[in-house]
Amino acid sequence: MHIVITGGAGFLGALLARTLLKQGKLALNGASPAAITRITVLDRAAPPADLASDPRVVCVVGDLNALLQSQQAVPADADVVFHLAAAVSAECEADFDLGMRSNLAATHQLLEACRSLHTASGKALHFVFASSLAVFGNSPEQPLPEVITDTTLPTPQGSYGIQKFIGEQLVADYARKGFVQGRTVRLMTVSVRPGLPNGAASGFFSGMFREPLAGVRARVPVGRDLPVAIASPARTVEGILRAAEVDAATWGARTAVNLPAFHTTVGGMADALENVAGSAVSALLDWAPDPAIERLVRSWPGKFDAARAHGLGLKSDSSVEDILRQYIAENPQAIKNAV
Amino acid sequence: MHIVITGGAGFLGALLARTLLKQGKLALNGASPAAITRITVLDRAAPPADLASDPRVVCVVGDLNALLQSQQAVPADADVVFHLAAAVSAECEADFDLGMRSNLAATHQLLEACRSLHTASGKALHFVFASSLAVFGNSPEQPLPEVITDTTLPTPQGSYGIQKFIGEQLVADYARKGFVQGRTVRLMTVSVRPGLPNGAASGFFSGMFREPLAGVRARVPVGRDLPVAIASPARTVEGILRAAEVDAATWGARTAVNLPAFHTTVGGMADALENVAGSAVSALLDWAPDPAIERLVRSWPGKFDAARAHGLGLKSDSSVEDILRQYIAENPQAIKNAV
Repeated sequence: MHIVITGGAGFLGALLARTLLKQGKLALNGASPAAITRITVLDRAAPPADLASDPRVVCVVGDLNALLQSQQAVPADADVVFHLAAAVSAECEADFDLGMRSNLAATHQLLEACRSLHTASGKALHFVFASSLAVFGNSPEQPLPEVITDTTLPTPQGSYGIQKFIGEQLVADYARKGFVQGRTVRLMTVSVRPGLPNGAASGFFSGMFREPLAGVRARVPVGRDLPVAIASPARTVEGILRAAEVDAATWGARTAVNLPAFHTTVGGMADALENVAGSAVSALLDWAPDPAIERLVRSWPGKFDAARAHGLGLKSDSSVEDILRQYIAENPQAIKNAV
Repeated sequence: MHIVITGGAGFLGALLARTLLKQGKLALNGASPAAITRITVLDRAAPPADLASDPRVVCVVGDLNALLQSQQAVPADADVVFHLAAAVSAECEADFDLGMRSNLAATHQLLEACRSLHTASGKALHFVFASSLAVFGNSPEQPLPEVITDTTLPTPQGSYGIQKFIGEQLVADYARKGFVQGRTVRLMTVSVRPGLPNGAASGFFSGMFREPLAGVRARVPVGRDLPVAIASPARTVEGILRAAEVDAATWGARTAVNLPAFHTTVGGMADALENVAGSAVSALLDWAPDPAIERLVRSWPGKFDAARAHGLGLKSDSSVEDILRQYIAENPQAIKNAV
């Protein structure tokens, strides 16, 4: 089996690739597990050394739009595409054209590349699209319901959310036409992301854990009361994989599936940090609201009823403390003080 | 005031242009009425003679994508764009690329043309987008609720519906960013359309009145029980105009407004034809189901709760008989027998 991962050198993409390489096989679309013979990692950046050195991994470094333009993105023998590459929320708000190109045009052209393979060979690739809770946006003119379900109308309040939601529609129609076997999962707030901060408005949801654990001060740009629907990287990758694994009847509607989340607040996250790492670590948080970030992040919902995801056997994390302990265990080099 | 109408030579576009020319002025966005000095009609076809000969009308004949490419679509002094041009439902199902180009790419590029004007002059044009009830689609995996409201999640079951729904998202985000003052109305099943049949799967909703009234047999490709949400051309144009007239606060959310409809069935439509024109005329209906048309049309909803539209002062027609009498009065040349 040949697997393509866009954004495969990014944090989630690399974790997905590692998970696939470790399990060595994938049961696609309800079929028996098949051995993974190749993973093509597409990314603007070079992948981490452990991925690059795996003989099953082919790295294609370049801008996704350019790779699509030169027909290098989807190899003819590919079986499944995990589409994770995206410009992040704050980037898209600051640079409208970047978001339209990286999120909308790239997703459209990636689906077109899959459609070309379908036209040429009749093969409908499995296509898993990583959308986001940012498709939901609260506004004074149209308040979100208190609890988001799988049939809540998305009303994005940012270009990133609009572009992701348009991507969902394209995946649904390319799937309905039989060009791909398309599935969309909406990712919750993923924390703790290791490594460097990215341009996402949601970056602090990881930074407020990662930096203090590394002995560095971290700004929390929102109030303690902000509700958040959080999921660990492991649970998130589990959800992305499940979208490839289940058969069409189990998957059901072509609309997106909201992945499970643990529901808390930013204050609850800070408390968990103190519980796990002590008050000297949580004292490294600087509570300094940033109105622009707070406005965008506060427009996102904090509470989900993820009925479809539960029906697919997916579960949320059991606590923020668990998420933190998981991060500490897996990233010993990023922890300054033994906790 | 300079008004641009895409698809302005089509039936609805021409009716909108005539209505505007007749009233001579338009109260835009809650402001006082201003005199209409020019209407630019963009269409692949030449407009009807009455429009072409009006000194206030400028006709630009050409493919919308090509006109956009050569920057001829949106004049620098335009104040409002009514975007009605579209490839219709059955065309988009038969020719996927046509729909993506005519509906998605053209809408995107039209918004980009408006954005360029905004960048150049700071002026945010008023942009009214005609979407469709076809954004709603019933499917076994995701049945529609019995009554559609303004917050029902669209789950389009055709490429036309997907493309219209994506257009709605683009209009909403270009409006949120301040590039345009964007408004979307979802048109109901418009009947009676005069003239020749078009490629829409919904074409028979007009043909089953128009043809028998002209003394010609007409095929009804669906069952009598099919529910339908119908609106006369006059009510439809009223809704499109209201989207330009009201101020932002009255308009409210950036999501689309479902226009009001009269709720009946195809059988009820046939009964109304008999009531108005007699049984000799309704006997010209050939009830011969077409599975492909029936599948698409039956996926559309038949019942709406158009709360936002009612809040804007818009009303549905009062009966199918009224709609028919309106058509007969306005199209005497198309009626064979005095009725």
